[in-house]
Formats: sequence, structure tokens, C-alpha cells
Amino acid sequence: MTNFGSDNAAGVSPQIMEALGAANTGSAQAYGADDVTQRLEERFRDLFETDLAVFPVGTGTAANALALSTLAPAYGVVFCHENAHIEEDECGAPEFYTGGAKLVAIPGSCGRITPETLDQAAQRFRKGFQHHAQPAAVSLSQATEWGTVYTPEELAAISEIAKKHELAVHMDGARFANAVAHLNCSPADLSWRLGVDALSFGATKNGAMAAEAVLFFDKQRAGDFLYRRKRGGHLFSKMRYLSAQLEAYIADDHWLENARHANRMAAMLAEGLEQVPGTRLACPVQANEVFVQFLSEVADRLLEDGFFFHPWPAAGESGYRLVTAFDTSEEEVAALLQTAGRYAGELARRTA
Amino acid sequence: MTNFGSDNAAGVSPQIMEALGAANTGSAQAYGADDVTQRLEERFRDLFETDLAVFPVGTGTAANALALSTLAPAYGVVFCHENAHIEEDECGAPEFYTGGAKLVAIPGSCGRITPETLDQAAQRFRKGFQHHAQPAAVSLSQATEWGTVYTPEELAAISEIAKKHELAVHMDGARFANAVAHLNCSPADLSWRLGVDALSFGATKNGAMAAEAVLFFDKQRAGDFLYRRKRGGHLFSKMRYLSAQLEAYIADDHWLENARHANRMAAMLAEGLEQVPGTRLACPVQANEVFVQFLSEVADRLLEDGFFFHPWPAAGESGYRLVTAFDTSEEEVAALLQTAGRYAGELARRTA
Amino acid sequence: MTNFGSDNAAGVSPQIMEALGAANTGSAQAYGADDVTQRLEERFRDLFETDLAVFPVGTGTAANALALSTLAPAYGVVFCHENAHIEEDECGAPEFYTGGAKLVAIPGSCGRITPETLDQAAQRFRKGFQHHAQPAAVSLSQATEWGTVYTPEELAAISEIAKKHELAVHMDGARFANAVAHLNCSPADLSWRLGVDALSFGATKNGAMAAEAVLFFDKQRAGDFLYRRKRGGHLFSKMRYLSAQLEAYIADDHWLENARHANRMAAMLAEGLEQVPGTRLACPVQANEVFVQFLSEVADRLLEDGFFFHPWPAAGESGYRLVTAFDTSEEEVAALLQTAGRYAGELARRTA
Amino acid sequence: MTNFGSDNAAGVSPQIMEALGAANTGSAQAYGADDVTQRLEERFRDLFETDLAVFPVGTGTAANALALSTLAPAYGVVFCHENAHIEEDECGAPEFYTGGAKLVAIPGSCGRITPETLDQAAQRFRKGFQHHAQPAAVSLSQATEWGTVYTPEELAAISEIAKKHELAVHMDGARFANAVAHLNCSPADLSWRLGVDALSFGATKNGAMAAEAVLFFDKQRAGDFLYRRKRGGHLFSKMRYLSAQLEAYIADDHWLENARHANRMAAMLAEGLEQVPGTRLACPVQANEVFVQFLSEVADRLLEDGFFFHPWPAAGESGYRLVTAFDTSEEEVAALLQTAGRYAGELARRTA
Repeated sequence: MTNFGSDNAAGVSPQIMEALGAANTGSAQAYGADDVTQRLEERFRDLFETDLAVFPVGTGTAANALALSTLAPAYGVVFCHENAHIEEDECGAPEFYTGGAKLVAIPGSCGRITPETLDQAAQRFRKGFQHHAQPAAVSLSQATEWGTVYTPEELAAISEIAKKHELAVHMDGARFANAVAHLNCSPADLSWRLGVDALSFGATKNGAMAAEAVLFFDKQRAGDFLYRRKRGGHLFSKMRYLSAQLEAYIADDHWLENARHANRMAAMLAEGLEQVPGTRLACPVQANEVFVQFLSEVADRLLEDGFFFHPWPAAGESGYRLVTAFDTSEEEVAALLQTAGRYAGELARRTA
Repeated sequence: MTNFGSDNAAGVSPQIMEALGAANTGSAQAYGADDVTQRLEERFRDLFETDLAVFPVGTGTAANALALSTLAPAYGVVFCHENAHIEEDECGAPEFYTGGAKLVAIPGSCGRITPETLDQAAQRFRKGFQHHAQPAAVSLSQATEWGTVYTPEELAAISEIAKKHELAVHMDGARFANAVAHLNCSPADLSWRLGVDALSFGATKNGAMAAEAVLFFDKQRAGDFLYRRKRGGHLFSKMRYLSAQLEAYIADDHWLENARHANRMAAMLAEGLEQVPGTRLACPVQANEVFVQFLSEVADRLLEDGFFFHPWPAAGESGYRLVTAFDTSEEEVAALLQTAGRYAGELARRTA
Repeated sequence: MTNFGSDNAAGVSPQIMEALGAANTGSAQAYGADDVTQRLEERFRDLFETDLAVFPVGTGTAANALALSTLAPAYGVVFCHENAHIEEDECGAPEFYTGGAKLVAIPGSCGRITPETLDQAAQRFRKGFQHHAQPAAVSLSQATEWGTVYTPEELAAISEIAKKHELAVHMDGARFANAVAHLNCSPADLSWRLGVDALSFGATKNGAMAAEAVLFFDKQRAGDFLYRRKRGGHLFSKMRYLSAQLEAYIADDHWLENARHANRMAAMLAEGLEQVPGTRLACPVQANEVFVQFLSEVADRLLEDGFFFHPWPAAGESGYRLVTAFDTSEEEVAALLQTAGRYAGELARRTA
Repeated sequence: MTNFGSDNAAGVSPQIMEALGAANTGSAQAYGADDVTQRLEERFRDLFETDLAVFPVGTGTAANALALSTLAPAYGVVFCHENAHIEEDECGAPEFYTGGAKLVAIPGSCGRITPETLDQAAQRFRKGFQHHAQPAAVSLSQATEWGTVYTPEELAAISEIAKKHELAVHMDGARFANAVAHLNCSPADLSWRLGVDALSFGATKNGAMAAEAVLFFDKQRAGDFLYRRKRGGHLFSKMRYLSAQLEAYIADDHWLENARHANRMAAMLAEGLEQVPGTRLACPVQANEVFVQFLSEVADRLLEDGFFFHPWPAAGESGYRLVTAFDTSEEEVAALLQTAGRYAGELARRTA
């Protein structure tokens, strides 16, 4: 099987495996009092060029839901894109963690909301009107669920609308690395400098085993995160192993190199697919996900040949999603392209 | 630092580290569709000699809270010992996951409740009386938080009372291995054969990195666990790494050997401490925890000398808890005993 | 002030006031063990021609949220119209009571969803797929929030789709009386015979002081409503006064007469407004609510003259909502029509 | 039936019935924008001699649970007497409204906790320790569930301990009137001047139909009560009828006269019962509840003769609770005493 199914299907990078081994030396204080965790805040402070609070957790869903529960009250509204992970793929985790806040789904092409659509959505809920759930936060996925990346300018404009409505800004950064790699900017320029209050900084999809960091750029905002994390069952006793993953992940640009590679593989895939007769990209490819419409026979043959990827009806008729990861090889991409090209060619000859 | 502070401060056993490496070969289906997870149920079925449902999660708190949320409704009552982990050390996780069920704390010596105290507690809540929260489950810690172990006979008697009140039986088995090792019985004889409905089968404290399995012995009872787990953020995308830990943990009696070793170290510690003048055990030592009252000067000197363990006021004046783990060495135990003996002796001479 | 603002601004009908007085004779068992409450089930059984369970509560929000919490699990999805009261006007009560279920808002003209739009919405959530919140219920407002009424045929078709997706059917009947009055059918024909599982049977808007009944047509489905009601603080100690309102409400067709009157007033208002130059109805008027677009100057003058009604931007430019109640008089309607006609006429002459 | 079963079994006082009628004049703004509700804050300000926020709700359970949800976070601990209404009789309403806060039940004779027992209980939960639920509030029932009344001095001492642990102070005043009547002090002296932050000011048990007011003495503390109330389904659309009850209740000392009468009846009952051979009071009678141990034959005969009251096992062998209300008559009390005396006398003769 050649995996284009998900970056979650990828393994763990050698550097991170090594860090886990290195952390496994005798005893260490539990629950985050260990040395690795203790220095993690400093590491992230260096990376983001600002003081911040860091909370390691094990899954992206936990990161998102816990962050939102800190930013939005039970009677709050969280605005997000209609295909956001928090809206579509977390079985109601944000609702659970916030105690029943309302997710309001905003449509938008290729995974992006706009200042206008956010403004419109927020206006539906009147501040101070007791019958209405109260606008509390906006959650932005960067990179988006459709493999696109918000530009800093787009984010700044959305952030301004958020301020106007007194919304906290959460960023679902399960693929934050891919966005930074795409924009070639600093992490700071893509987060707190644009008004992001809390960032779910993902590592799992990009080479870690199971590690995400929730970052609050204003420590006050972190508030009672400690208790919420424990209460959610997300305080790991042997936390050094989470922290070691995160430390290795951000050391020596490992995270960016992984993301750059995955992005490059996706770009190569996209360029190649555009040459395949009958194949159409559904969205611009800016991160590590490629949404395409194949000729259905071509897709069927690729799947039969052991290329693994998911049907994606929302991408249109005969739509599919292909995902690359830090460990996707050029050979794998080339093989898929070659095979697709061959089948498309055969098909053209047959129907000619 | 010589660690007697917690079994959570221990590292990961070589066997489990190796299993993690072995699982790290290329891509694998995410969210539990991988091979290791797929065969996990069979492995546990063999171990427990019955059909069952297995759900890997990352922390003991998650295992307990999720299991209880499946067994008790929001308006339910969960009975437990007043020092149960779910009552004292999880920051309200069971209340959170159940949607506000009531934990009713039952006193009892050395961490154990009795059929009588459970019966009494359950009678306070009238079935069908709308003003009362409704009796739903009992949670038993095996081994207990006080390093003791319920005998199968004790459990059978409690289980009978549970049936009388139509209570589901949950077992917090964060240290289930130590209990099985102590009793030298089969896992089945200590769980479903005694009426246990759901077991939080712990591995983390006994050599894993972060892995616990929630077991339901009646698959029907597992009900909607799938959704609750995802919603709690406890569905790991790269689940193979959790499952690999669990598989290695129960393979070749690794879990029992680890537990037997830890128990032996605790027994050695206890026997030795009983010889130290002025030192008194607060509870029988049946698993891997030792609760003692030291002469306060002796305790202070031990801590200064780099032996690490926690004060435990509930164990009485100058009370402390010492915990052994799979990686505690005889030398470490001997060193502590020798040092304690020396200080106690000096003290005796001085005060003589 | 002449009230067209809300049927909630109306008072209590003489018959219901009288019933409250009649109930106030000495002591009576608390919490529903009184005589009035005891015979309430029989009264409703007669009215609905079937066995059922009846639970009096004090507000419509409580009725809806409690009913839905019985029909949908915390990880469930409740489908409803995008302008449903539960979606827009209850500050997240259904989310609170269900423990965080997801409300999915379906657009549709004049407050109605269709079998097709429900089918489409339900398909977004895959049954058994752990990442997705699970389809659980559909909530239909009858009459709708836009003053329209579903026909039995429309409801039957929606109900069929609900069955296909295994959705429980809830009906928000805050204005059920107005719907029955409009269709001139039996309550049974508009509820359980069409597959409705639970009905929030409203009385407050139609002449009661504060009384709604939650009806379950399959007593099994009522399940744990008792505990949920108490836990929500909605079990009234002196319940006889709630029950007395409900009993008087459904006695001697009082509820239908009130509704027929309110509907007639709305129809008279609508017919008259259609004659007013520049005034446009936004939706057909089938119950007791009239949505209109006035010439803005006409609206301003009416409000200045002491006619009270709310702006309703969703009804279009210069949109307003006018509501009639059991106590709206023909004189009040005539006065408004005459005044509106006069101002519109003046305006026409001025601009001619 | 002569009712000594509950003050909830009493009817509505003539003054309050009259106020309901007086409020029923034509239309009035909904949801609290009516005149009666608008002036309610001023009325309560006068009564309590301080600025405050007033929120009418329909039940005592709602008042308590909503107040506590404003004072305690989901991960908080609420301390209360083990027989507090919130702990024993609300089916988990406080847990539901707070999102799973922990109620910690403190034992204490005749319904009262002490500064010492509160201090002890609070110390079990370490502030800032992430494993522990966090101490948040103490809830005091005044009068207590055992018919006793805390003195201002006792409350001041408890309040001091609350401050020490940074606990908000909630008072369950379902029978606040009876406590004020007993102590003959001002409402202010028994609430905010002693450090009470929020008071559930009960009216239902003392002559209202269904009306309680939640008072916050620091308006800031009221915080988001508005949204929580709506979300709980406790915002009444025709709120004037709740407010009218409350207004009439506190006008012209009506509430105190009702309470004084009920207290006097209880005192008369208690004094009389002390003369009945074999009858023993379980607690001092300071409000409108009498807990007694009857000779069991005497109790049986009274119940047979149509006197209604509840067995109360917690009051000891053959223990019962007798409650008086604003409408209990001297004749009823005298009849019970006479009958009890007669049966006790007969019994004495028989066994002599």
C-alpha cells in the first residue's frame, strides 16, 4: 500500500523516536515536573519570540476542545468554517468541553472564511441579549481542511472583525507547520502578532507519535487550563515523553523541514495531476493536501493498484483527497503520477 | 535521587520501548484500523478467557472517567472509597464525563469499602424517587490507593450488594497487575467472574509510556464508548503506538513480572522498615505501595540524603508513602533501609 | 400601548385565572401527587386519543430542552430549521440539557424544512462513524416561527425521512393550538399519528400564566424524564397550580377557541395589510403571526402612535413581526389597519 | 387530612393570590421588561438596605443550582451540610448546572456545619494543585433542613473560614423568612453583612405559588446569571406573574408575618409534644419544622386519624418530621397534640 490516505497514517520521524529513547533514562518527576517539560516553555518562547504558556496534550481534538473551553463559556458561540475539524470531525468535543457552546458553521470556498462572512455570522447573535448564545470566539484552521493557507493579510482582516465583536481568536494548527512552511514567515508573524490568542500547535500529523501543544500568548488567558486538562483526562503522568516529542519536533527546524518536504510532495503531486487528462484540482494546493476530481475509472484503477486515498464527495463528482506527509517519497509521488497518466491515456485511446 | 515517589516517575520498560520501535515501520491505518490494534481484542480475549471489548486510551483518568460515563447517567450516583483516585485525584473527571453524576465517598480502613458500608450508602438514595440522584455504579480500586488488595471473596460479597442495588461494577485497575500478582490468580478470576462490568486495565504505572485499556466484559455495555472516547479527545490518530504498548505489556507475562518485581520490592521495603525502631506501617503491604509513619527526624534525613517520597498526612503523624516500580532495584531498597536504620539508631542513642 | 409585540405579552385568560383560584383550597400533596396532576394524564389521553406520559413544566424552553435531552444523547445531532426557537432563542438550552448535542440548522422558506433538506443534512453525519456526532432527532416547530403551518402531508413526508435515519421526532408546539386551529384536525392527527415521539404542548402563549406540558406518546421513551426535570429545577413543588392551568386550558375547547381567535385576528390583520399600499406580506399567514414589510415611514408612524411590534430584519427591508393573541380585539386590529392605511395614503399623496 | 407533611403542601396566601389577579390587566412586556419586574430590584434594595441584583425564578432548586453555577466553576468544590437540600434532594441539580462541580458533604448535628468542620473539609482540597477539584463555595441553609437556625455569630465565624479559603458564600434561604422571624433581625444582618454573596430567597414554601428570587449583593458577582437562567429554561416569558408574587410577598411584612405564624405553630407543636409521654424532640425547634421520635404506636394512630406527616429515619428510631406553614391553624396543632396525648396516655395505661 502506498499511503496518500492521511498524514495520520505516517509513522514517527527518526529524530522524534530518538528523543523518546533519550528521555527514557531512569526516573523523572511525574505530571510535568520533569526537566524536559520544565524547559519546554523556554523552547517555545524562543520559537515564538514572546512569553507564552505551553500545555502538552496527546491529541489534536483535545488541544482544540480544551483551548476553546478556556476561551468560550457554556453559553458562548464559536464561529468556524463549516468544514473545520472541530465542526465535522470531533464528534462534538468542543461542545462537550465547553459545556454546550454553540458552533456556528460558516461556508466559504476551499476551507476559508472571510471577514465579511464572519461579520455577518456574528451579527446574528446580539451581545447582551439573554435569548441569544453569546459570541465568544472564532476558530481558524491554518492550514485549512482543504489544503489552503490563509495569508497574513487575510488573517489580520479576520482578526479585526473578531476584535470588533470581542471574539477570542483560536487557531487550529494541526497543520500549522505546513502553513508556516508555505508562507515562509515566522511562527510569531502567523499567530500572536495577528491577534491569535490560543494556538493548537500540532506535531502528530507531521512526525510525532502523539503530541500537540496548546499555546496561550497571554498567560492570563490560560486561566484554568490546568484544571480543565486534568479533568479531561489529558494530564499525562509520564509527561516527559510528550514533552520530548515536542522538544525534538521544534529543535533544529525539524518541524519545518518535515512540513516543507510534505508540502513539496503535495506540490509535485498537484503539478503532475494537472497534466493528467481529465483530472482537475478542486482547490489550490498550498500545504500537504490535494483535492482532485479524477476520471472515475482512473481513480478505481489507482486504488486497485495499491495507492491508498479517500473519496471526498465534497470535492465534487469523483472527488478524492490525497495527503502527503514528512515520509512521503518522491518515488511514491512519481509512481502515482505515472500510473494515473498511463490509465488516463489508455482511457483516452479507448474512448477516441 | 532515588525514586520512591511514584510508579509514575518510573521510565518505560525495554520490552515496551522495543515494541514502539517495532511498530514504527512505515504507514499504517489511523484511528485503530491498524494491524496491532486489530489483533488487540484477541490478545485480551486470550488473557481474560472471555469475549470482551477493548478500548486503548492514554491515561488512567481517561479510562476511569470514560468507563464510568458509560455505566452511569448524569443523574446517577457512583459509590467509591473516600480515597479513590476518581474521588480525590482526578479534579472531577468522572463528574465531567458523566455530565454531573454524584460521587459518594465511603470511608473504610486502608482503602477498602465493605459490603456493609456500600449497602448503607446505597440505601440513602431511593430508586425511582425523583428527588434523589439514582444509584448507578460502584467503583472499586484494585489494588487500592492504600496498597492493599481486595480478596476475591471480599469482591464477591461487594458485587452481590451491587447486584442487589442494580449497580454496575467498575474496577479501577491502575494497579490491577499488582493485585493479580499478589493474589496469584487469573485476571478472569479477579474481574468478570466476580461481576466486574468494566475494568480500567492500567499499564502506565507498570512499565508502559502512556497506555491504558478500558475493557467491557459484556460488549453490549460498551454501548456508545466509541463516541464518548472521540468526544473526550481520547481517540489517538496513530493508535498503533498505544496498542503496541498494550500488546507488549501483556505478552509473555511481562505485565505480571513487572508487577511481581514491584510487589517484591515493596514487601522487602516493608519488612525492613518494620525492623527500624520507631517506624510503623499504616496498612498491610500487598501491592507496590508502603505507607509508614517514620520518626520525623528519620524521614527528614532520608529526604535530605536523596531518597524521594511523599508525605502522607492521612497515614497519621509523620506519615509517608513510598512506592516501588518495575524498575526499583534491590540495591535502592537496601540503601534506604540501611540509611533509615542508621538514622533511627543514632537517634535512639542520642535520646537514650 | 396596543400590543402586537408578542403573544407572551398577553395576560392570563379568565378561565385559567379562575382555575388557579379553584385550585387554591387548602393543602394538597406536593410535587405532583395532588389530585389535579393525578388526573391530568387522563385528560390528555382523552384529548390525544392515546396512552401517553404528561410532564408539566413552567416554560417552553424547559419543555423543548428537556424533551430533546430525553431523545438525543450528548454526542447526538438534532436537526431543526435555522430559525427554530431552540436554535435561535434559547441561549443554548438544548445544548445544555443534552450535555452538548449539536444543533444543525436547516434553511427553508417561511420556517419550514422539507424532506429533502432534512435528508441532505442527515447524510452529512455518518451513522457509526466515530468522528461524527450521531444523528438523533429532528425538531419541528408547529406552527413555525414564521407563522406558517406544516400540513399533515408535509409532516408525514418529513417523518418518513426521520425514520429512514432513525431520528426521533420532536415537535415544538409552543403554538400547537394555532396549528390545530388552522388545520381543523385532531391533535392526534397532527402528532403521534404522524410519527411525533415527543410534543412540547404550549399553553403560556395562548392564555396560560406559565404552563407547558411535555408529552411522550410512547411512555417508554419518557425514560428518565423525571430525573432530568428535577435536576433541571423544573419540578414544581406546588404543582397543582401548573396542572390546574393545563386542565383548564384543554377543557371545553378553551385552548382551541383562544387559538382560533388569535388566528382570526392575524388573518384579519393580514388581509387588511395587503390592501395598504406599499405593504407586503413576507410569508403566508396561517397562525397568529404576521410578517410584513411596511414602507418605513408607515412603520415609524405606527410605532409612534402606540402600536407595539418588533422590527424583523430577516423579513426583508423594513420588515416587522406582528403577533396576535387570544386577547387581541377586532378593534385593535381595525385601529392598526386604519392608521396604516391613512399614513400610507398620506405618503402616496405627498410623493405623487 | 390535616397537613403537617410539608410547607410545600400549603396553598397560596390570599395576598399573593390577589397580587396575581392585580397583575393580570391587559398586556405587559415579556421576559421581565414589565413594570412589576422593573421595580422589583428597588423593592429588594429597600428590604436589604443595599444595592443588589434580583432574578426571579420558579423553584428553589433552580435558585440554588443557578446561584451555585455562578459562584463555582465546573472544576470547583461546593461545601455543604450532608443533609443540605442541594446534596440530598435535588437529584444532582447543582452538579448539572455547574457542569460537574463536586459537592462535599459535611456532617454536623441538627443540620449545621461549624467553622471547624468547614475548615477541615476545605483543607482536603489543595488550591492550585491540578489533581484536586478547587474549593469554590460554601452553601449554608438558613433555616437548616433540621429546623434549626444559625445565629449571626455562627455565620460570621463560618464566613471567616470561607474567606480564608476564598470560598464564595451561598445561602439556601428556602426558609430564610423563618430564620429572620426567629432571630428577629434585619435581612441585611443575616446576609450580606455576614459575607453572604448570593441568597436563594424563598417564597414558595411560605405563601407564594411558585416564586423564588436569587439575590447577588455584589452585582459583579451576578456575572452571566442572565444567560445561565435562560439556558436553564428559567426565564419566564410572562415574568410579571412571578414578580407580582415576590412583590406582594415582601410588601407590608407579609413574608415575616407568614413566617412568624408558621414558627409559632411549630413552637406550639414542639412544646406540646414535649409533654406527650414517650415523645422526644430530635433537634431544637427554631423555625417551622419539628423532628420528633414518637412511640411508634402513637405515630401510627395519628397517621390513621388523618394527620399527615413523613417518617424521618435520620431523626432516630420511630422518627418523624412535622412541618407547619403560614396556613397551619392553632386548632390543627391543638388537635394533633390532644390526639397524641390521648394515644400516649392509653398506651401508658395499657402497658402499666
